[in-house]
Amino acid sequence: MAYFDAASAAPLHPVARQALLASLDDGWADPARLHREGRKARMLLDASREAAAEAVGCRADEVVFTPSGTRAVHSAVAGALAGRRRVGRHLIVSSVEHSSVLHSAEVFEAEGGTVTRVAVDRAGAVDRSGYAAALRPDTALACLQSANHEVGTVQPVAEVAEECRAAGVPLLVDAAQSLGWGPVEGDWSLLTASAHKWGGPSGVGLLVVRKGVRFAAQGPVDERESGRAPGSGNIPAIVAAVASLRAVRAEAAQEAVRLRELTARIRARVPELVPDVEVVGDPERRLPGIVTFSCLYVDGEALLHELDRAGYSVSSGSSCTSSTLTPSHVLKAMGVLSEGNVRVSLPPGTAEADVERFLEVLPGAVAGVREKLGAPAPAVQAGPEELLVDSLGKRCPIPVIELAKVFGEVPVGGTVRVLSDDEAARLDIPAWCEMRGQEYVGEEPAERGSAYVVRRVS
Amino acid sequence: MAYFDAASAAPLHPVARQALLASLDDGWADPARLHREGRKARMLLDASREAAAEAVGCRADEVVFTPSGTRAVHSAVAGALAGRRRVGRHLIVSSVEHSSVLHSAEVFEAEGGTVTRVAVDRAGAVDRSGYAAALRPDTALACLQSANHEVGTVQPVAEVAEECRAAGVPLLVDAAQSLGWGPVEGDWSLLTASAHKWGGPSGVGLLVVRKGVRFAAQGPVDERESGRAPGSGNIPAIVAAVASLRAVRAEAAQEAVRLRELTARIRARVPELVPDVEVVGDPERRLPGIVTFSCLYVDGEALLHELDRAGYSVSSGSSCTSSTLTPSHVLKAMGVLSEGNVRVSLPPGTAEADVERFLEVLPGAVAGVREKLGAPAPAVQAGPEELLVDSLGKRCPIPVIELAKVFGEVPVGGTVRVLSDDEAARLDIPAWCEMRGQEYVGEEPAERGSAYVVRRVS
Repeated sequence: MAYFDAASAAPLHPVARQALLASLDDGWADPARLHREGRKARMLLDASREAAAEAVGCRADEVVFTPSGTRAVHSAVAGALAGRRRVGRHLIVSSVEHSSVLHSAEVFEAEGGTVTRVAVDRAGAVDRSGYAAALRPDTALACLQSANHEVGTVQPVAEVAEECRAAGVPLLVDAAQSLGWGPVEGDWSLLTASAHKWGGPSGVGLLVVRKGVRFAAQGPVDERESGRAPGSGNIPAIVAAVASLRAVRAEAAQEAVRLRELTARIRARVPELVPDVEVVGDPERRLPGIVTFSCLYVDGEALLHELDRAGYSVSSGSSCTSSTLTPSHVLKAMGVLSEGNVRVSLPPGTAEADVERFLEVLPGAVAGVREKLGAPAPAVQAGPEELLVDSLGKRCPIPVIELAKVFGEVPVGGTVRVLSDDEAARLDIPAWCEMRGQEYVGEEPAERGSAYVVRRVS
Repeated sequence: MAYFDAASAAPLHPVARQALLASLDDGWADPARLHREGRKARMLLDASREAAAEAVGCRADEVVFTPSGTRAVHSAVAGALAGRRRVGRHLIVSSVEHSSVLHSAEVFEAEGGTVTRVAVDRAGAVDRSGYAAALRPDTALACLQSANHEVGTVQPVAEVAEECRAAGVPLLVDAAQSLGWGPVEGDWSLLTASAHKWGGPSGVGLLVVRKGVRFAAQGPVDERESGRAPGSGNIPAIVAAVASLRAVRAEAAQEAVRLRELTARIRARVPELVPDVEVVGDPERRLPGIVTFSCLYVDGEALLHELDRAGYSVSSGSSCTSSTLTPSHVLKAMGVLSEGNVRVSLPPGTAEADVERFLEVLPGAVAGVREKLGAPAPAVQAGPEELLVDSLGKRCPIPVIELAKVFGEVPVGGTVRVLSDDEAARLDIPAWCEMRGQEYVGEEPAERGSAYVVRRVS
């Protein structure tokens, strides 16, 4: 039994639990009231704000507690864009931001704003030149995550912040995945974070707006949290969130080395143990606890169920819910294989033995799913110069499986045309070619769906 | 030591505390995830939704958990107005709604919508005819609180709901102050509530949207809570909130009788014990635990401090924060005295002895404040036909105090002109006349501020 989905939500830290219990008696009243109970609540809230500011590396009066990291992002994007409306209506985001950022950008577009989505490399990283090229005189705001929530790749925030500062554009950093490991470096202007990523309770987010940054909170007026987060916050939860942040920070240096070694082990061993696997994300510039890989000929959800039955809780894709069937926008932007995707995110304290057992369990789990799906065994005999595979109406990963099944039947130089109307094929067939060292000729319109043409080069 | 500010936030109910602790171990994960921990969290969330629906009297799939009552109101008003945009851009609210409703209405006006504010009687109640008269073919939404948060007056929700239903207009009921006492009667369409009013944790609100009500959630897309409340909720807090609602409901019938008797005692005794006091709000159609009165010649904040020193935590005005200095919009709409205002709101379980001791302490506290402010002793001798009182630059309650000091000096039939540039004088001088049975002649423009003319009739 092991929980390897810390990037979704980390288990409540023991220190968070203690802080929560300790503040239940004094933290329930309205901190804005003048009476004794109100003052007690206010003292807890003020102390939490001071401690959060110290951990972030900012002033206490720059810190606002929000009802979640998602709400912090929504408020930050809307407030910063409105604060600089006179400057212009242009927003820059990376193509691998968290959905809360991308959905905020969609709202802005619907209201007539323009959005530039900065591309990432195959490791999932942006570079400063991408932001430098995107910056315009009418750019109101730029957004960049400190590290990717799905593949763990660390972004060059300090460099991008320099570019933005030079252009006089505020940079909003979504630090949800990294704040527990350390403060965000560089000259950023706004920052958001989410407590349940570092072992605090759910329902607590952080919004930091540096002094001097133009910010116009949107929505109905409310006097709480300097007018930037309406409604009564859950003060014991806030106390617990900040206590947990301090606790994980104290353990961060040591734990980072340990988890990095464990994830490095997974990165190295999985391709040895499981055939046809692609480990994604930057091998060096990455978060300590996250490793993500995709398995050819595998349905991610089926694999999650196999692993869950085996006692391992992991996640797949970047979906903020289990319901979505569309391929992860992060993997898509990286141009890597999206089928059979597994994100392993280790919480602090993960035992080496649990990782080792996971590596024992994984190959069988993958093989089991592939067997159910009828994944191919390598074929050899030569056949016709060109083959047609009709995968119309079949969902990922079937088209790639059918491609692979027949591929050995065409001689070197021969081609296979895969007819498919599944969205994911457009991503996964080229990815399969890259993994296999085969040539992806291209996509051609077909009566139904598209024809994906692959030439055998070896 | 007694806490009499339950209408701001009730102390955490013991059952809420137990439920919170019991769910900390199973409630921390992302309920949308497919793994074991996610399923455990989802089960807690689903069970809470079922229980909340039962307490409200609606279907579970009509219940959404929000980060606070304020956020529930903001989402409800914005979503209902957007859902019926085609019908029209007219909104109806009562003039004594909670600030979260009134501030939502201000946003709507700023965006070009029209708002009708229905007046209340001197007891703070609307009547059905007021809403009937306000309803228009282009009315998108009507809002009415179930009971007033400041004076405890219960509103005729069922009757107003009938009027709205007949006009095909959805009615949103802010049930923050009453849901702990029982379900909201009548054929309402949307409902909001706030857990810390019934002994649940802060940071949990309820939004109920009846099936068939047009609703278009505003802001960035998010799949949680049927797309109506973005971000990860605090599931243990939600479990605690619902457990607390069920617990206070179980005690409600008995506790209502007991608290009603205690507040009736305060309503009756305060005017006997303290001179120049006006008890406000409906003496019959009211919440069990709330009683509000205003003391002539008294500064509300000073009185709060006196009572706090004496060990009694009460609040003043309707301010959602302690900072505001403007007179309560509720008392203003009722046309009653706003100076020296005290709201006593008893939490369930309040001991009779604490109420009795409060009644012993109150007269001295009021007298102390009046003495500091130099409040008048009755004067008798006759003087000139007309007197001028220059209170320019002096804040409430000074102008009324100075009026009262000299009033005895003019003979019956004589007048006193009070020069004042304090907002509150416009409200309090007429109120003083009503309390004293003197004639308020009216307001006249002056070089600075206004002249308020009062004729002595007895």
